[in-house]
Amino acid sequence: MECIEAILTRRSCRKFKSQEVESEKIKTMLECAIFSPSPANKQPWDFIVATNPDYNHLLKEASDEAKKKLVERSGWKWMPKFKIDFITEAPVLIVVIGDPTRNGAEQFLDVPSQGYQQACSAAIQNMLLAAHSQGLSTLWLSLFEKSDVRRIFNISQDKDPIAIICVGYPDVIGDAPPRKGLETKVTYLD
Amino acid sequence: MECIEAILTRRSCRKFKSQEVESEKIKTMLECAIFSPSPANKQPWDFIVATNPDYNHLLKEASDEAKKKLVERSGWKWMPKFKIDFITEAPVLIVVIGDPTRNGAEQFLDVPSQGYQQACSAAIQNMLLAAHSQGLSTLWLSLFEKSDVRRIFNISQDKDPIAIICVGYPDVIGDAPPRKGLETKVTYLD
Repeated sequence: MECIEAILTRRSCRKFKSQEVESEKIKTMLECAIFSPSPANKQPWDFIVATNPDYNHLLKEASDEAKKKLVERSGWKWMPKFKIDFITEAPVLIVVIGDPTRNGAEQFLDVPSQGYQQACSAAIQNMLLAAHSQGLSTLWLSLFEKSDVRRIFNISQDKDPIAIICVGYPDVIGDAPPRKGLETKVTYLD
Repeated sequence: MECIEAILTRRSCRKFKSQEVESEKIKTMLECAIFSPSPANKQPWDFIVATNPDYNHLLKEASDEAKKKLVERSGWKWMPKFKIDFITEAPVLIVVIGDPTRNGAEQFLDVPSQGYQQACSAAIQNMLLAAHSQGLSTLWLSLFEKSDVRRIFNISQDKDPIAIICVGYPDVIGDAPPRKGLETKVTYLD
């Protein structure tokens, strides 16, 4: 699939088929992940690929708990209706783990930025696009307490589980949520 | 350009031609930026496109100052030799500005993550790929104090200037920095 077309047609997926995902396609996603840029080439990422459904169930329990809290704390009216069954359904989960010690020189600024988080997010976007261009769909999940994900996937305390990518063949593909136009988002200085 | 090929062949560029960049290509980059996913579709990004060389010079000054500090504080031996003339040379600068108030529900977790930063980083990666697939090259710059960038580009205190993307036609394209192999980065749980 052409690159710009892939970027513009990628959608988040909340309803996966049970169809198995070829391991070669997951490997391509991961190769694309590690080809994202990182500050000082620190490559501050690790990945866990979970295909045993036990992990989906444990994660779903943790996300249900997190959701309960967030419904209460956010007061957002759409949240109680937000279904997260896709967590159980996705045939593959990819846990993206950042290493907070692997930042670039920006860590020494007066106001440091967290390059490792930015690099991991770029790696995630590469994976979402690589999935889409291979006919797969994804959901970038951050509805969990990091402590739960550390426990479930046996991740050490010094690592930062940034997101979990749910991967599978799409059963339903929704419309793109509306975007605010560029005219409201871009200022030109020329 | 095919999507996975674009991901695997994109390189950071540190030597740009003076050749002008077509505004349509920049617009395509920005359209790709806003088609990245964001938590709860909050679209927590704004962009400044600067093509007046005055901005390059002001930014270069600020980055030189930042670099001096980082050479001293990091002790990293390669840093003094790290040339940042590309900041002056890049025909286009795109400032990516995050809005820390526009996070998704993850802001209400016990240990909140900063969804706006992750979304902006995904938007940046989309731009880098869209640039590359149109024959342009880029450099993801975070070598600046945010206060300087706020001053130079007139950005309010409540917004977070996350990165500046230097854009232009490449004069020199370096090799890809070596990546650690997947076997050191991926754990399979099946």
